[in-house]
Amino acid sequence: MSLPRYTLGEIADLIGSTVQGDSTVPVCGIAPLELAKAGDISFLDNQKYRKFLETTQASAVILSSQDAKLLSIPALICENPYVGYAKVANLFNPKFEYEQGIHPTAVIGDGCNIAENVSVSAHCVIENDVTIGAGSYIGPGSVIGRGSSIGEHCHLWANVTLYHGVKIGHKVIIHSGVVIGSDGFGIANDEGKWLKVPQLGGVIIEDDVEIGANTAIDRGAMGDTLIEEGVKLDNQIQVGHNVRIGAYTAVAGCTGISGSTKIGKHCRISGMVGFTGHFEVVDGTVISGMTMVSKSIKTPGIYSSGTVLEPHHKWRKNAVRFRHLDDMAKRITELEHQLKNLTGAENSDE
Amino acid sequence: MSLPRYTLGEIADLIGSTVQGDSTVPVCGIAPLELAKAGDISFLDNQKYRKFLETTQASAVILSSQDAKLLSIPALICENPYVGYAKVANLFNPKFEYEQGIHPTAVIGDGCNIAENVSVSAHCVIENDVTIGAGSYIGPGSVIGRGSSIGEHCHLWANVTLYHGVKIGHKVIIHSGVVIGSDGFGIANDEGKWLKVPQLGGVIIEDDVEIGANTAIDRGAMGDTLIEEGVKLDNQIQVGHNVRIGAYTAVAGCTGISGSTKIGKHCRISGMVGFTGHFEVVDGTVISGMTMVSKSIKTPGIYSSGTVLEPHHKWRKNAVRFRHLDDMAKRITELEHQLKNLTGAENSDE
Amino acid sequence: MSLPRYTLGEIADLIGSTVQGDSTVPVCGIAPLELAKAGDISFLDNQKYRKFLETTQASAVILSSQDAKLLSIPALICENPYVGYAKVANLFNPKFEYEQGIHPTAVIGDGCNIAENVSVSAHCVIENDVTIGAGSYIGPGSVIGRGSSIGEHCHLWANVTLYHGVKIGHKVIIHSGVVIGSDGFGIANDEGKWLKVPQLGGVIIEDDVEIGANTAIDRGAMGDTLIEEGVKLDNQIQVGHNVRIGAYTAVAGCTGISGSTKIGKHCRISGMVGFTGHFEVVDGTVISGMTMVSKSIKTPGIYSSGTVLEPHHKWRKNAVRFRHLDDMAKRITELEHQLKNLTGAENSDE
Repeated sequence: MSLPRYTLGEIADLIGSTVQGDSTVPVCGIAPLELAKAGDISFLDNQKYRKFLETTQASAVILSSQDAKLLSIPALICENPYVGYAKVANLFNPKFEYEQGIHPTAVIGDGCNIAENVSVSAHCVIENDVTIGAGSYIGPGSVIGRGSSIGEHCHLWANVTLYHGVKIGHKVIIHSGVVIGSDGFGIANDEGKWLKVPQLGGVIIEDDVEIGANTAIDRGAMGDTLIEEGVKLDNQIQVGHNVRIGAYTAVAGCTGISGSTKIGKHCRISGMVGFTGHFEVVDGTVISGMTMVSKSIKTPGIYSSGTVLEPHHKWRKNAVRFRHLDDMAKRITELEHQLKNLTGAENSDE
Repeated sequence: MSLPRYTLGEIADLIGSTVQGDSTVPVCGIAPLELAKAGDISFLDNQKYRKFLETTQASAVILSSQDAKLLSIPALICENPYVGYAKVANLFNPKFEYEQGIHPTAVIGDGCNIAENVSVSAHCVIENDVTIGAGSYIGPGSVIGRGSSIGEHCHLWANVTLYHGVKIGHKVIIHSGVVIGSDGFGIANDEGKWLKVPQLGGVIIEDDVEIGANTAIDRGAMGDTLIEEGVKLDNQIQVGHNVRIGAYTAVAGCTGISGSTKIGKHCRISGMVGFTGHFEVVDGTVISGMTMVSKSIKTPGIYSSGTVLEPHHKWRKNAVRFRHLDDMAKRITELEHQLKNLTGAENSDE
Repeated sequence: MSLPRYTLGEIADLIGSTVQGDSTVPVCGIAPLELAKAGDISFLDNQKYRKFLETTQASAVILSSQDAKLLSIPALICENPYVGYAKVANLFNPKFEYEQGIHPTAVIGDGCNIAENVSVSAHCVIENDVTIGAGSYIGPGSVIGRGSSIGEHCHLWANVTLYHGVKIGHKVIIHSGVVIGSDGFGIANDEGKWLKVPQLGGVIIEDDVEIGANTAIDRGAMGDTLIEEGVKLDNQIQVGHNVRIGAYTAVAGCTGISGSTKIGKHCRISGMVGFTGHFEVVDGTVISGMTMVSKSIKTPGIYSSGTVLEPHHKWRKNAVRFRHLDDMAKRITELEHQLKNLTGAENSDE
């Protein structure tokens, strides 16, 4: 597979950008500023890497008009250079060709409706009454439960598992090890023993969603779990039953979202955040890594919890004190009170 | 598949409850109070939803005799309405029929003992000397390692992996992506390099356990990892080698349990809790979400750690101060001392 | 499968150790001190278990010369008894024999280079242009993406997934449910919608690495994600794109490592640690469980964050005060100031 090769001018045309300098310079790869070689295009988004601009071997750089001002090598001007980078990287992304049709080792149930130009890979199991839309790819070893539907131009990597009755929109990407539609954690305590609460709902994944490796999304108890349009989920995320994640929200790895949590649109949730369930998070909220969200968030903003890294021996002393924090607060109040009395007394002495 | 249809009186008989009002009202579905339509039964457990009682379109409601007092529509009286809901939901849970027998694409080893009415689905791999009890279902793509045994009426969903020598009891439910019997994290530092400690033990899963999607349970180093009767594990949980989880304990998603931790019976462990290993937790303990359990718990109760959500700019100031907490505590003590001297001095002046 | 049987002297020879006492005592198993029966060898590493030395039924014990001084039963002297235990356990570790060759149900792509004495198990899918070195074992249901390479004497358990272009060294162990080479979480915000950043890099796993069940390792955005020689990763770990983990570092379960984090060599990272991305951790660093690493670590040492377990009602009071910690600190400073003025005033009164 030979890599594509463009002139800088051609790239500018393809992504709708403009060139500063020589538009005939050939570009055959993309690399970070500090690693780029002749023939590569690079980009500057984070000012932390600005120092590499002077020494980079790249043949061209994607950057803002402001940053391009003093640049001596050819530039692709993008006011959002990270978006420009994403678009150019896409030109150099190898497009695998998948054999269309159903691999002879795949097992297909009755009543399925699989479009003609779909790829169903080796050792897939497609249960009864499944629909798969045009242009979709189902990777090896994936299992699609009965009655589920997958839209057009979806890409399910190898060893994905969908339970029954899961609805996937168009252009959805699902990475390996993902499980969608497993039973939510519904249990009722019946005199000390747990009674399983049947999980009667489903899961709806809207268009343009991407779901990272080994993430699990439970079906609803009653009604559906809903991942809205354009949501991006990283790896190892847990999504409980009847969660709703609003459109264009991004969630980083290892985050756990308890049942019935409602997260708004355009939120940015960092990694290993814990949502303790049944709360709502307003549109546009940003939550930093490892935060415990144990109440609803009604005002957009950036939210955090936890304590920061310290050498262990210092941390231990401070952590011990944390257990006396309420007492410390009361002692401060008492000191203020005593001191006021004292100075008051002194003042009254005058 | 048509949904079942009952009268309220029939439901009361089936779950051992009593009707208040018209027992002939037909019920053909179950839904939350605020979403229920005519023909649905609903339930009231959490008083937060009590406001919906007046406006619900449900044909009947499961609730306590106390809450039913002023109800104008038919009621199913259950003193534990959530248990009542679980039982009624079970009546409306579609029972899939699985074809019995071994799918022609399944690969079965030598010396296996598979009961006649078992379903072994497409592309399963059952290694040598495996036993599977009557009425059990093994989902597509699942792999059962050599010498493992699965009891009666178990349900393993698709793409489950059991290693060799894993013992599963009766009526166990295992969700997709679960791995049981992988090597524990046993490593010995031999002059800077890690030497693998062979993991010679097994895993025992007792009856009526349910294990959520993508959870992993390691085999013992010596002796077995043990999940006792009726334990319920949510998704994405990590269970280290030689852990023991006591009967009827429930563990929510993303919790990590380090090797040799012993958790008692009837505990309730929330999500993303971390157990740092070799500690014991007494029966009946409750641990809130994201708590770090770094010592044994000898008295039943509710335990927590961590800090709570704040706007980031406030949190940052407070988190910085946390690093000086020990110093702050000492300064308070010093202030108290000085003030005592001062007032003592004043008093002695009198 | 009958277990092997040795004399203590034979074991000493095999692992390069010395015997104290009767070297002819037969040993046919290994068990913890408190559970060992006649015929078992046991070990003492953690002094917490020293109390069991007097009552153990073991036929011999692995321990240091210091601890062996007063021992009345035969001993195997190892100055690092845990390493001795690892070596002896290896003698009792059943070595499964795997049928060599390619199982008839496995699907092998074009252009693959699979050594003769490799085992490719049932229902594996090996895509085009894959290389597998001598003596390697690929478990049932595993999928190896196109162009990936696996070295010699590797062991991939069942249901492992490698994407395209993943490079695995020699003697690597990969547990079930592991995903390697999935796309990193690269997204660019283009006027409110997320644009996928193609992930053009790969993953390199060097020799002697072990990767625990359900761990996920993303491919690089540009350039490779790198797991160096001898690294040991536990279960359920998330490794983001372009992470580098230095040689002989061990990482415990559920830890999340954000993109571009660089962890040094010989580090010990506990479970459920969160790395917030783009930071560096120096060689030889130790990080305790559930720590949030939100800055670079430049000095080796032990690091921690978080607060410790408390009864919930006490914790709640303290956690509330945490939100006023900055205010408390200021009030202490003010008190010190006032008190200084007061005592200064008093002093100047003299």
